[in-house]
Amino acid sequence: MSARVTIALDAMGGDNAPEIVVDGAAQARERFPDAHFLLFGDEKLIEPLLSKHPRLLDAVTIRHTAKAVSSEERPAVALRQGRNSSMQLAINAVSSGEAAGVVSAGNTGALMAMAKVTLKTLPGIDRPAIVAPCPTKVGESVMLDLGANVECNADNLVQFGMLGAAFARTVFGIEQPTVGLLNVGAEEAKGRDTVRQAAAMFRESKLPFRFHGFVEGDDIGAGTVDVFVVDGFTGNVTLKAVEGTVRLYSEYLRQTFQSSLISKLAYMMASGAFRKMRARIDPRRYNGATFLGLNGIVVKSHGGTDAFGFANAIGVAVDMVANDINEFIMRELAEYGEQQVPKAQAII
Amino acid sequence: MSARVTIALDAMGGDNAPEIVVDGAAQARERFPDAHFLLFGDEKLIEPLLSKHPRLLDAVTIRHTAKAVSSEERPAVALRQGRNSSMQLAINAVSSGEAAGVVSAGNTGALMAMAKVTLKTLPGIDRPAIVAPCPTKVGESVMLDLGANVECNADNLVQFGMLGAAFARTVFGIEQPTVGLLNVGAEEAKGRDTVRQAAAMFRESKLPFRFHGFVEGDDIGAGTVDVFVVDGFTGNVTLKAVEGTVRLYSEYLRQTFQSSLISKLAYMMASGAFRKMRARIDPRRYNGATFLGLNGIVVKSHGGTDAFGFANAIGVAVDMVANDINEFIMRELAEYGEQQVPKAQAII
Repeated sequence: MSARVTIALDAMGGDNAPEIVVDGAAQARERFPDAHFLLFGDEKLIEPLLSKHPRLLDAVTIRHTAKAVSSEERPAVALRQGRNSSMQLAINAVSSGEAAGVVSAGNTGALMAMAKVTLKTLPGIDRPAIVAPCPTKVGESVMLDLGANVECNADNLVQFGMLGAAFARTVFGIEQPTVGLLNVGAEEAKGRDTVRQAAAMFRESKLPFRFHGFVEGDDIGAGTVDVFVVDGFTGNVTLKAVEGTVRLYSEYLRQTFQSSLISKLAYMMASGAFRKMRARIDPRRYNGATFLGLNGIVVKSHGGTDAFGFANAIGVAVDMVANDINEFIMRELAEYGEQQVPKAQAII
Repeated sequence: MSARVTIALDAMGGDNAPEIVVDGAAQARERFPDAHFLLFGDEKLIEPLLSKHPRLLDAVTIRHTAKAVSSEERPAVALRQGRNSSMQLAINAVSSGEAAGVVSAGNTGALMAMAKVTLKTLPGIDRPAIVAPCPTKVGESVMLDLGANVECNADNLVQFGMLGAAFARTVFGIEQPTVGLLNVGAEEAKGRDTVRQAAAMFRESKLPFRFHGFVEGDDIGAGTVDVFVVDGFTGNVTLKAVEGTVRLYSEYLRQTFQSSLISKLAYMMASGAFRKMRARIDPRRYNGATFLGLNGIVVKSHGGTDAFGFANAIGVAVDMVANDINEFIMRELAEYGEQQVPKAQAII
């Protein structure tokens, strides 16, 4: 990437803001020398932090605002009262074209509400979805929606398939990604009506990806498909359950190695290999959930992440800008979307 | 337990039936000397297997039938055409009072359909749920529904709470279990309407358990509550995703220890500790999902389990018989159910 990329950062969002945002920007700057950051937030807090990172100085512009959206704020309230918040102003920078994307570790619901109202959805997309990569036995897959839409109809699920496949094609570089619908069984007669209806729509459509059919929860870890499509309620519970399981397993492992002197010694011997394993499942590596389907690039970092995690979330935004994902999605929707995908009503 | 307990076994259900059923019964017989088994299935196949287990002989009665429900059969078809199947006859034995419970490793949908039609639900329960224990950081919790109902209303979720709490009280012996509703966030304003409606019903009711409020996916591994209540679609996807994650983590661990000679040596040194860890997360230990809310005890074993896993599923059934769980549920429903839990319609 040689062109300069400007990313707007909500400097006040997240449990450890603005520290992790400034430190994360400094790390991201090393990885992406052509990136420029607009830091939205309280300059009295931001400026002293910048002094630690002399190499970052010529890559940032501070846009002062004293207002910030709190993590407890309801989305509707944040939308009404947060007009001058760091989060809203950072989104505005994308809307005005000043920045190519925005990253925030703040209140997820508020970020989604503000981004939807300010940026609007892409033509042909009814609702944006939250998408994130997840590690699998064979590499990485993506799953969506992870919580933006607690109720989804068949049209939404089909659109999520288009969005997820575009993500896999542009960000992962998979020419012909496979898309699966999460369901309670692989057989055609099983599951929710909306999911079966979405499957029928996929099967009747000419698509820029391969529709695999139904997949089950254990296909996620196995990496059976590149894109897992699911409603936002189930996707959110599932993603968090998987994270909880990794923590549980790690705790079991810790106890296993502390159970005797010889197992402690064994741990020390294998510590190099363990470091590699930990890096592989490090949740910070997978930090940065994208709000896909909006007319602008919006990345949500985990609220509790550190500078390394925040830098990775910035990396996700830079990646999508560099791959021009929204341009790609719009081309595909124009080609396949409206003409090819039958509307849910037409089937049932 | 001193009284004789009779359990009906579907000898023909599961990938490795009837071997695992007969071998599993032999293992269960050692653990429960007062158990008696009615083996429903093909006597030509069952009898030769019994010869390996002389101590089992006086604890089993074979009920011959040549018919069996295949694993691909649709539930409605199995119900119509499976009248003389080993599965249906085993359920009939519970209905007639000959057996106190039934265990099958066969087709889940068919087992649920046959059990519902034959045994009916308990008074006050609209739909049965599938419940199973899951390991947590602090011990064990239960989750329901795991796939019997892909769509659930608020009444169903409240009833699942009653059923799950009764399970935790009788089988785990927890005097005052905590019950949580799985949702996309812990805040009251978040989530699906049905889930929020169920929460309101729990809060307005006098209950034989403590309603914790909303919980999230990562609370499962943390063991935040004793009973996790969720619709059957989300519950099924979540449970399988957790199983898939455990397999993925185990695979990473295997690769970690094979990465060098020294890490292989470390593995050998810690092999005793690893054996304990494997036993702790062994899915066979958690084999045996209960169909709760039916007028009879029905346990579904995993189709691909072995004799050890099947014996554990028998153990779950024996446990519930010994604790008289349905008597307990009916008492609680009479006391709290109809009078105390407001119907969903009354709230919204």
